Amino acid sequence: MTQDFSKPALLIDEQKCRQNIQVMADKAKRHDLIFRPHFKTHQSLKVGRWFKEYGVSQITVSSVTMAEYFAPEWKDITIAFPVNVLEIDAINKLAKEINLNILVESVEAAKFLVDNLLHDLTIFLKVDVGSHRTGIDPDNKELISNILAIISASDKMNFEGFLAHAGHTYKCKKREDIIAIHEECLAVMNELKSQYKDQFPNLITSLGDTPSCSVANNFDDLVEIRPGNFVYYDLMQHQIGSCVIDQIAVAVSCPIVAIHKERSEIVIYGGGVHFSKDRLKDDGIIIYGRVVEKIDQKWGDIIEDAYIKSLSQEHGVVHVPTALIDNYKIGDTLLILPVHSCMTADLLG
Amino acid sequence: MTQDFSKPALLIDEQKCRQNIQVMADKAKRHDLIFRPHFKTHQSLKVGRWFKEYGVSQITVSSVTMAEYFAPEWKDITIAFPVNVLEIDAINKLAKEINLNILVESVEAAKFLVDNLLHDLTIFLKVDVGSHRTGIDPDNKELISNILAIISASDKMNFEGFLAHAGHTYKCKKREDIIAIHEECLAVMNELKSQYKDQFPNLITSLGDTPSCSVANNFDDLVEIRPGNFVYYDLMQHQIGSCVIDQIAVAVSCPIVAIHKERSEIVIYGGGVHFSKDRLKDDGIIIYGRVVEKIDQKWGDIIEDAYIKSLSQEHGVVHVPTALIDNYKIGDTLLILPVHSCMTADLLG
Repeated sequence: MTQDFSKPALLIDEQKCRQNIQVMADKAKRHDLIFRPHFKTHQSLKVGRWFKEYGVSQITVSSVTMAEYFAPEWKDITIAFPVNVLEIDAINKLAKEINLNILVESVEAAKFLVDNLLHDLTIFLKVDVGSHRTGIDPDNKELISNILAIISASDKMNFEGFLAHAGHTYKCKKREDIIAIHEECLAVMNELKSQYKDQFPNLITSLGDTPSCSVANNFDDLVEIRPGNFVYYDLMQHQIGSCVIDQIAVAVSCPIVAIHKERSEIVIYGGGVHFSKDRLKDDGIIIYGRVVEKIDQKWGDIIEDAYIKSLSQEHGVVHVPTALIDNYKIGDTLLILPVHSCMTADLLG
Repeated sequence: MTQDFSKPALLIDEQKCRQNIQVMADKAKRHDLIFRPHFKTHQSLKVGRWFKEYGVSQITVSSVTMAEYFAPEWKDITIAFPVNVLEIDAINKLAKEINLNILVESVEAAKFLVDNLLHDLTIFLKVDVGSHRTGIDPDNKELISNILAIISASDKMNFEGFLAHAGHTYKCKKREDIIAIHEECLAVMNELKSQYKDQFPNLITSLGDTPSCSVANNFDDLVEIRPGNFVYYDLMQHQIGSCVIDQIAVAVSCPIVAIHKERSEIVIYGGGVHFSKDRLKDDGIIIYGRVVEKIDQKWGDIIEDAYIKSLSQEHGVVHVPTALIDNYKIGDTLLILPVHSCMTADLLG
């Protein structure tokens, strides 16, 4: 390995990562689903190439910038974010080069595209299945009809289907809660499909959160899934119930710069600019990452009661059990599982 | 202006920024303090050059990487972070080129430096004045003596003084609380100075948090201040009482991508990867940023009750008063004051 361990560094366990891809690709195949993984988690051409070995040819990203990054190697990309009309020039350029799929959720955006698109692209209507972040209320048939009318009249826009993200599964605490939300979302997508299938026989319905895709075993008539986080997983997904600790495929290596035995604390070079400030609460304790055993360049189990308790810009303060603190010295590195791998990989990528 | 407003963009109000620098430089002069501003907030050579116009020639940074970035233009840099021994090669290279000042807080680190330093540099002992993140307990005279003995025996290390950071002022809610902490910290630094001044007549004592430096008017025998955040300030500093809203010198411009009138929400392109997830609680409401009036390319007052209520990776959900929501349309940009400007500038810089 030629990685630089003198600073905070992202470690990827390729074997775990490929295993995660394999499991999800197999599941998609078993349920006859299009597998269009979200690449916002890894944002890496190299990790992206591993997906190709498991038959993936279509991907999801969350910004025009990310689509531009992947476009040289991926020719079918969905930007799963309400179209940002201010980026129309970049969208037109991408639409010329690849099969570009974008999301519309308003009459205003649809009209703007009619007037400004230069090349063919595919439109998904973004539907709100309960997370209430973005998307059209699926019961608002008038709005759906109005947007579809605008799209259908355009010679550049091809309507492909309905896309939703059940982001509220991220707030679940157990598998049964995830399944309950997933079933609700499936019902919404199935109903939309049955309503519009006569008009659009090849209609795609697309869902994609990692918790549902990891846990659920019923996908009914759904056509596509777009999970992203599963490639790495993280402590948040473990807490939700999407994965076991052993599936987490990234860790952050951080130099130890100070040891304060009297308060059972180690200070690491590794702060908010490396981990982000995503956190979770476990048994009332706020945690920004957990220390794992170091085994050569890989990692083993979580070390009980050893966790990042606070983060500032460049510092992390790690609580370590008193009985273990003498095992560490200045100049060692700690390996830490992140709370939210998407954010950590974005910062350290 | 040639800035790209099609994506989230950091706006700097140069006039407010220079005013903040001027006020702090004047204050340092008035109290006969060395003004060694922390550059981790802006991390910009361009903004750094403005400081030169106010007589600044010595700076503070929080990582070796940042020191490397500023070294071409700044010849006296303190890395205000416990020395990371794994970066010894980079430290030696910097020590050859500039006046480098580093922090030591353990016998282990001091011994490592004896064995591995190739060039002269200056050492500050990091003292814990109550924030309990890093630093030596100032009452632990034995540890201080042991480290000083190692440093004094080295022909490469020059002991310069004691450095501390009253990070606990960031948890204050009013000016009197900041002053109280500042006075405690001053007392610690004064005592250290009186104890060691016979041995080290030119001893420097250095403090540096933005809340204390903004609010306090007594600096006693203190020799140096190192505030950083004050150059931009932010909503957190405003809440603490360090600044007024009009002193905040950065805002983030974010495209509007969706409007959900029924729940008084606007979705912006601008998420955790742009703002960080630093937040504050105001009247029980969690806030990740506040919307301000847009006046040409600058900004005016805060718009009451218009704030970022949640952030995901690329999305921000903004609560907007129902009465105002019709003023906005897709393709406009919102201007947002960040909660923590250091993190936001790091992400968008």
